[in-house]
Amino acid sequence: MDIEQAIRERRSIRRFQDTAIPDEVLVRIVEAGVWAPSGGNAQTWIFIIINEQSRIEQIKAISPGLLGAPTALIVVCQDKDLAYKRGGELGRETLSVMDAAIASQNIALQAYVEGLGSCLVLSFHKKGIQKLLNLPEHIVPELLITLGYPAENPKPPKRKFEEVTFFNEYQAQHGK
Amino acid sequence: MDIEQAIRERRSIRRFQDTAIPDEVLVRIVEAGVWAPSGGNAQTWIFIIINEQSRIEQIKAISPGLLGAPTALIVVCQDKDLAYKRGGELGRETLSVMDAAIASQNIALQAYVEGLGSCLVLSFHKKGIQKLLNLPEHIVPELLITLGYPAENPKPPKRKFEEVTFFNEYQAQHGK
Repeated sequence: MDIEQAIRERRSIRRFQDTAIPDEVLVRIVEAGVWAPSGGNAQTWIFIIINEQSRIEQIKAISPGLLGAPTALIVVCQDKDLAYKRGGELGRETLSVMDAAIASQNIALQAYVEGLGSCLVLSFHKKGIQKLLNLPEHIVPELLITLGYPAENPKPPKRKFEEVTFFNEYQAQHGK
Repeated sequence: MDIEQAIRERRSIRRFQDTAIPDEVLVRIVEAGVWAPSGGNAQTWIFIIINEQSRIEQIKAISPGLLGAPTALIVVCQDKDLAYKRGGELGRETLSVMDAAIASQNIALQAYVEGLGSCLVLSFHKKGIQKLLNLPEHIVPELLITLGYPAENPKPPKRKFEEVTFFNEYQAQHGK
């Protein structure tokens, strides 16, 4: 699939079919995440693929932002000790958060290529997920990605463009 | 260009030719950013395209992470007041940071399709850039993206995969 098409046609999906996703597809999707750049090439991320239905339901119960019934999740985590070791405070507090987000966009795009719907989720109970997934304290879930074959085909939300793009200098917009 | 190819072949580029990038190419690259998802579809980002050489040099002087001599920059900012209005504290502190990173990956991929090199930069003087670009206090630069026709063709850094990917539960790796 053409990259420009994938970037423009990917939608956030919140209604899924109950067809399971093959393991090898899930692995390819995570691989796309691993190809993202990371600050100082630190690669301090950890990807936990969840495809056991009972676990998905446990996670859903503590994730207000997780909508619909996905057949798999990817929990994008960061090893905060390693991030600190590699990049100091900037690494732990900022780079690791951004790196998780950057990898997640690759994952969302690859999911689209595989015929899957996805949605990035940031509203969830971090400590609860750490406990459910047996994560030590320094491995922090930054983002959840829902995955499933889509059961909806939403229209793209209108995008702002002119009003958020400037050349060389910001100009305040009056009358907004 | 195929999406999987773009995801895998994009490299961070730090040596550039001095050929200028046409304005319409810069606009297409920012457009790709705008097609990224944003938390609650808030779209609180602002993209400032810098292609005046004097400004690039001023920014470079206060950005330790900015390497080489790019012919353009995109400064990815967030309107923190709007992010708070749309998403409360989570919106201002986390969603807006992640959204900037997610849009930046679309930008890096589109740049690659256009034959450009790019590098995401997080080490820069925020207040200094706000002053240089006439940004009010609530419009915060989150990320810089360097752009230019590449003058190098670096090998991909080795990617971790097996050691950062798990199914259903994290397992501590002994002897690391």
